[in-house]
Order: sequence, then structure tokens, then C-alpha cells
Amino acid sequence: MTSALHVTVWNEYRHEKTHAEVAEVYPDGIHVAISKHLRAGGIKVRTATLDEPEHGLTEDVLASTDVLIWWGHMAHHEVKDDIVDRVVQRVLDGMGLVVLHSGHGSKVFRKLMGTSCNLKWREIGEKERVWVVEPGHPIAEGLGEYFQIPHAEMYGERFDVPAPDTLVLVSWFQGGEVFRSGCCYQRGKGKIFYFRPGHETYPIFYQPEVLRVVSNAVRWAAPVSGPQIRFGNVPDFMD
Amino acid sequence: MTSALHVTVWNEYRHEKTHAEVAEVYPDGIHVAISKHLRAGGIKVRTATLDEPEHGLTEDVLASTDVLIWWGHMAHHEVKDDIVDRVVQRVLDGMGLVVLHSGHGSKVFRKLMGTSCNLKWREIGEKERVWVVEPGHPIAEGLGEYFQIPHAEMYGERFDVPAPDTLVLVSWFQGGEVFRSGCCYQRGKGKIFYFRPGHETYPIFYQPEVLRVVSNAVRWAAPVSGPQIRFGNVPDFMD
Amino acid sequence: MTSALHVTVWNEYRHEKTHAEVAEVYPDGIHVAISKHLRAGGIKVRTATLDEPEHGLTEDVLASTDVLIWWGHMAHHEVKDDIVDRVVQRVLDGMGLVVLHSGHGSKVFRKLMGTSCNLKWREIGEKERVWVVEPGHPIAEGLGEYFQIPHAEMYGERFDVPAPDTLVLVSWFQGGEVFRSGCCYQRGKGKIFYFRPGHETYPIFYQPEVLRVVSNAVRWAAPVSGPQIRFGNVPDFMD
Amino acid sequence: MTSALHVTVWNEYRHEKTHAEVAEVYPDGIHVAISKHLRAGGIKVRTATLDEPEHGLTEDVLASTDVLIWWGHMAHHEVKDDIVDRVVQRVLDGMGLVVLHSGHGSKVFRKLMGTSCNLKWREIGEKERVWVVEPGHPIAEGLGEYFQIPHAEMYGERFDVPAPDTLVLVSWFQGGEVFRSGCCYQRGKGKIFYFRPGHETYPIFYQPEVLRVVSNAVRWAAPVSGPQIRFGNVPDFMD
Repeated sequence: MTSALHVTVWNEYRHEKTHAEVAEVYPDGIHVAISKHLRAGGIKVRTATLDEPEHGLTEDVLASTDVLIWWGHMAHHEVKDDIVDRVVQRVLDGMGLVVLHSGHGSKVFRKLMGTSCNLKWREIGEKERVWVVEPGHPIAEGLGEYFQIPHAEMYGERFDVPAPDTLVLVSWFQGGEVFRSGCCYQRGKGKIFYFRPGHETYPIFYQPEVLRVVSNAVRWAAPVSGPQIRFGNVPDFMD
Repeated sequence: MTSALHVTVWNEYRHEKTHAEVAEVYPDGIHVAISKHLRAGGIKVRTATLDEPEHGLTEDVLASTDVLIWWGHMAHHEVKDDIVDRVVQRVLDGMGLVVLHSGHGSKVFRKLMGTSCNLKWREIGEKERVWVVEPGHPIAEGLGEYFQIPHAEMYGERFDVPAPDTLVLVSWFQGGEVFRSGCCYQRGKGKIFYFRPGHETYPIFYQPEVLRVVSNAVRWAAPVSGPQIRFGNVPDFMD
Repeated sequence: MTSALHVTVWNEYRHEKTHAEVAEVYPDGIHVAISKHLRAGGIKVRTATLDEPEHGLTEDVLASTDVLIWWGHMAHHEVKDDIVDRVVQRVLDGMGLVVLHSGHGSKVFRKLMGTSCNLKWREIGEKERVWVVEPGHPIAEGLGEYFQIPHAEMYGERFDVPAPDTLVLVSWFQGGEVFRSGCCYQRGKGKIFYFRPGHETYPIFYQPEVLRVVSNAVRWAAPVSGPQIRFGNVPDFMD
Repeated sequence: MTSALHVTVWNEYRHEKTHAEVAEVYPDGIHVAISKHLRAGGIKVRTATLDEPEHGLTEDVLASTDVLIWWGHMAHHEVKDDIVDRVVQRVLDGMGLVVLHSGHGSKVFRKLMGTSCNLKWREIGEKERVWVVEPGHPIAEGLGEYFQIPHAEMYGERFDVPAPDTLVLVSWFQGGEVFRSGCCYQRGKGKIFYFRPGHETYPIFYQPEVLRVVSNAVRWAAPVSGPQIRFGNVPDFMD
């Protein structure tokens, strides 16, 4: 993995344009905040947003993307099904996918999981503690035993996803809930990481530990040059 | 689990009506062969087929089904999407699902897995040995270390499914391939078992070990009266 | 599974005899409290304790035990290594094992896990909420979305165990920690369930939800009559 | 991971000195064959063998080893228990471990697994096909869909290990058996990879695909600078 990783940060980018309180926190959009951090780490970054043609996710863009980061919330239903299918296929073909916070409800994530991806939520700005339960995992690199988010939207279990292949992070919330906050999945040849923290009205995507998890996840999800798979009829008997 | 299990055996039921060689092996359909075995074990069984209204899978039928068995092959694409959605939702709500052989390509299974579910295949009637790799699993009850199918259609890896929560069976094929033949999944509140053996032109669904796996799987996949889940906004702070 | 399950409840049984505050809560020992509940559910129960010959775990007792429940704390080091080996071997041969609370530090559990099984703890009687994260699992039968323990010893992550095959329960603690409280493992032909709640100075083993989890776990961990395994040299080539 | 990896290749190194047919294949020992390949890939390599003081595995050596490769067979019982404990502890603290072929029976591997690690075997030089079942895993980098070993000792299921966290490779044998040949485990902070191929009388450790898997595994198992864990009493309540 000597050559630079190519990451595309996808953002719905609606809240920032319509809600003053969001624009105040992320004046250029959540995607720009995340992109700055990744670029500082030597990663090649492009961004794409919902209102661009093909949501900015053309065949060319996806073909040259190693890892796609996904943030969406209020307009999940506006993402076109053919683009969803294209993204899903590209993940199965090996592209990494990092799904952030409310992206749990995106068509892309739900289709790849095969479940509702529903959860509980509460928005009173309570405290969150994110615990590392698998300290030897690459996504835990550089973290402490836990990190704390002073004001967060709560997400609570039951989180209706398949049991993750690896569970890296579990959140504690002041109000009494827990949540599987860092979940690794392999689907087809692609790696998927769901990461809970992050919200449009809190400056969570400026918090160093959160950004560290995002960049760790990007590196973990990088494609592997594994075998080309031949599906279908193989009439030949083994020699 | 004192009361009887209610199983619905779903069969596409096309091969049997159009191909003489299939009709010879399964004159009343694959669903009837499987049903007889399950009934002999004290299970309440109904059948349903593609050409019935709503494919025989009405809301009422599904609501009163504990475990659904699925066999399809040549007409996967004819299964209506709204019925697929209905079955998938019922699995997420707790109904068990046992998917047989070519059912790997069914819309229902692919939607629940989130992957292509593709594989390799070859149809020359070669020998298959099905090995038990998890001998303490309920689906291995009553089996030997392996069982052999004298003439089988080969399915080979890569099988493009999520890694099973539990891998119970692995097949060896005379021609040089291997296959994860018995795969357990939890999706939502429902349990899913994919079972490879079985074919329309071989008498595999009369073989005692194969039938044993099917009835074991049905018992394993029985619904659990677990918690009712409340998704969405939970404004209340913990007392 | 028509015949009755045979369970042996093992208790170190020292705290109850030496600490008045423990004796007040469990006058006949923790093992008796648990036994009463299991017997009421139609399970055949024996008890065994540290100070009996062979710790009450003779070859005969183990051979006729379907599931062993283990509670120990202050005298883990007094359990003799040959008895530990005997129990471990019996688990690998198919006996179920349910390990309670401070049993995480027992020689038996640590040997089966291969890791330190260390954790964080704090004893100030804080509140615990135990959340069901896998509501379709048999061990969640009859539970609500969570249950609450008013005063508990805290156990916190990192819990140094292998990632469980299935994670059923996650605890929230008032003081800011989380814990994987219900962990399923398959080891050899035996099933193991680690269950966090329970303490010698709190009446936790009288709480209905806790007892329900214990009896659910016992049923889940029941042995399976799977294949007899032949290890070693198999000189015969396949016919 | 910019700095070079430090690997120690441990070899029992007895067969090579006592059996002419082994010495012919591996004149300088299996460890030297493997070391050459790793060095060619830019990895820093030391070797250690059974008959050295402390088996060559002093505290200093282990402390400066990122990943340990383990090959043993006829003298598993001669490895001293205190050295075994030292290696196991170092793995739990984060050192990677790659266990080759007959190393399945080593004290180190068995202690970390908690099971017997028994299997079937047959030594008639039959053909083996190693299939990649998880083509997106880093250990599959650079491989084809399968690779073939013309003459191998057979290892067959049931392989009595815990279900791997990730199953990457499954072997097919000419004589009718299958085997989970590439198994990933996380134990404590350390990563473990068990890799089946390799034998003292076949030139398997010269085969490019086998060597590729070994070096991929070494890179995958490299330690992560994750959180320092504080176990034990944490009296402080969260602020």
C-alpha cells in the first residue's frame, strides 16, 4: 500500500444550506471538514454531493475511488436507486465504505446490510463515551481506552444490523443507553465500517479522536488486490 | 417450545411440471417430498407455490408461519417484489428461513444477504461429501462426521455471501472444489439457514441425512419470544 | 430435547460462610438460590462446592451433567488443576457451561478462553442497565428491551476475552462504563455462556430477569448429539 | 506502518538434523527458507530454534518482535512451559503470531485457542487445492482463486479450534477431505493466523503462493498502537 489512497467524501449537503445553526458549525459542509483532515494525512480526497449530476458519483468517480465516505440524513429518499445500485456494486467489487452517523438510514447502507438499520435516538445534547472494546484492531490505532463527546445525539440499541464481523467501539450515553458504535463488515470484496458519532449541529467532526477513527477506518477499508472471481458455469473437471 | 412448529414449504414448482426427468424424481413436487418428512417429525406443514395467488404467501400465511423453507431456480425473476418485501420483513420480525440449494439466487435470499450470492457450478453428477465442521451445533444433531451424495450438481467457492455467523457444513466435490454448504445467519429477529444440497434431477431430498439437516434447521430457526423493540425517538431520559 | 436437562450448580461457597452480609442475602449459598429457580422450571439440579472432595466434580458427576453453572470469586486459586482440566475436557466433549459474574476470573473460564479475561471493576452499588442487542437469540426469550439492576458492582471494558461468537447483552453503568454482559462461545462440542450480573452482596440472583437469563442459557447450552469425531491418522483414501 | 516490520521465525529444527530426506529439502532448516523470502520483501528477520537457550525466545527477543512465526512438530512437548507462557503473554500484549502446519499441535497455539486443536491427517502425498473464500481479505492479496500443492500431507476436519474470526482459506484434498486452512484470530491485542500448508518432506515452503500467504499474514498480524488498557479497580466515578 505504497501509493496514495483515493477517497471520495460524499455529503448530502442540505442541512448546511438550509439551517443557520448547521451552517455555523460547518460553513463549507461536513464533507469539507472531513476532507481537510484526510488531506493532512496524505490521502487524496475528492468530494461529491447530492445535488450534483448523478449525485457526483459517476462511473468514473467510483472507479477511481478506493474508499467512499457517506454522510446523509434528511434526504436519504432523494438518492436515486440506480446510483445506489452503482455504489453497492462497487463496494461488492472491492471499494471500501465508511458510513457516518445518520448514514445508517441511507439506501446504500441498508441495501448492503439487508436489514432495517433502525435504532433509537434522542436529541438533548447529552454526554457520550465511546469505549474501545477491541484494542488490537487497526481502527483503534492511536486512541485511548475511550473518548468522550460532550454533547451528542443519542443512538441506542437495538441497532437492527447484522452482527458485525468485528465490533470495535461501544458507546455509553448519559441517559442510559448503549450502542455498537464502530462496526466492521466484509461484503463481497469490499470492507464497510459504520461509525456512529457525528451530527450536523455539534462540532463532532472537528474532534481529533473522531477524525482519527475516520482516517483509521479509511486505511483499514482500502481495497485488496485479491483474486479475480469467476462465477457461473465451470464445466472443466480438475486435472 | 412445547407447541408444534408451523412450517410453510415454498416451491417454485415449475421444473416438476415441465421436465419429465424432474417429474420422475419428484412426481408431486419437491415441496411434497420435504413436507412428508417434516410431518413425520411432528411438525405442522403447509405448502405454497409460485403459481398460486400471491405465490401462496399471503399476509395470513406468513403471520402463522414459524419457519419458511424456500426452493426456487428457473423462475426467481417471476417472484413479485412486493411478496419478496413481505417475506423479508417477516424474517426480520422473527420468522425462520431455510433456503435450499438453488434458492441462493432467489430475490428473498439476496435481499437479506445484501450481496450477489453468486457461486460456481457444474452439472456432471459428481460425488459430494458434506463435512460437519461444527459438531456441537444443533443442526449437526444425529449426523455422522460427513455424509455423501453420490451424484450432485457442484457448487464451488467463492460463494459471495457475508461470512456466516456460524459455519456448520463444508462440502468437498470430486472435481476439486469446496463449498460452505451449511451457513447460519441472524437477520433482524429471524434466523436464516442456507443449505446447499438438493437438486431437481437427483433424489437428494429423499436422502435421510439431507432431510435430517432440513428438520434440524427448522427447529434451530424457530422464532424466539424476545423483546418487542421500540425504534425511533425516545425522548425520555433515564430515571 | 424431550428428556429433562441435568444441571450442576457449582459454587465456591466461601463468602456465604465467612461474611455476615453475604450470608444475610444468600443464607444457603448462591447455588441454592439458583437451584430453586431451575428446579421450578423442570430442570434436574445438583449442587457442588469447593470444599467437597474433588470440589464435588467427580468424573461421575460431570459425566451425568448436561450443563454446569459456575460461580467463584475469592478462591479461584484453590481450584485444583486436575479438576480444572477435567471440567475443560468435559466442555470440549459437549457439556454446556454457564459462567456467572466473578467466574470470569476462574481457571476454567480462562483456560477455555485462552486470554486473561481481565476487566475493570468498581464497587459502589451503582445502577446497571442490561440491554438486549440480539433480540432473536434464545437467551433473550421472555426479556424486555433491557432490565435494570438497582445496585451492582460495575464491570467495565476492555473485557479481555475473544470476541464472542454471539453477543446477546451489553450493560450500561451509571458511572460511565459499558460491558459485553452476555457472551456466547462454542468451544469443542460445548457451548459456553458468560453472564455478567450477580454479586455476593446484592440480591441479584433473586431478580426474575437475571434468573430468566440463567435458565434460558442453560437450555441454549444443552448438549447436542452430534457426530463422534475421529481424530488422528486416517490412512484410508476415499472410495 | 512506515518502519520495517521485525519478524522472528521460530523453528523446532530437529527433523532437518535427524532425517536425511528432510535435510535434502530444507538443508538449512525451514526457518531459513522462510526467512529468505521475508527478507526479500523488506522485512527484518531473525530466527530462533528449540535447542538455543530459552529456545531463542528471550524477553529481549520477544519484546523486539512484531510478528512471530512458529513451526514445530516432533518436539512440541520439549518447549518449556515458562517460555510458552512468555510467548502467549506477548501475543496478548500485541505481538502477531503466524502458526504453520504442524504448529497446530504446539503448546503455544493450543493455549491461545483453549481447545485441543486436533485434526485428521494422512501422509500419502496427495494433491491439495487451497481455495480463497474471502477474496477481499489482506491475506488474499496477490493470490488467484486457488492454488494447488501437488503433494501434501492431508489435514482433515473436524479441526478442533474455535470458529475463526475470519476464515480466509479452505483446502480440498484428493482423498475426500476439506480443511479450514487459513484462520484469523484476535486474542488480547494480538492477531493470530493459522496456515495449514507446509511440511518437512515436501518443498512447500518454496512455493510462491505459500510464501505469499506467509508474508501477507505477517503484514496483517503487525501490532497496532492501540489504547493502553487499565485493568482492575477503577474507583473513580465519571465526571
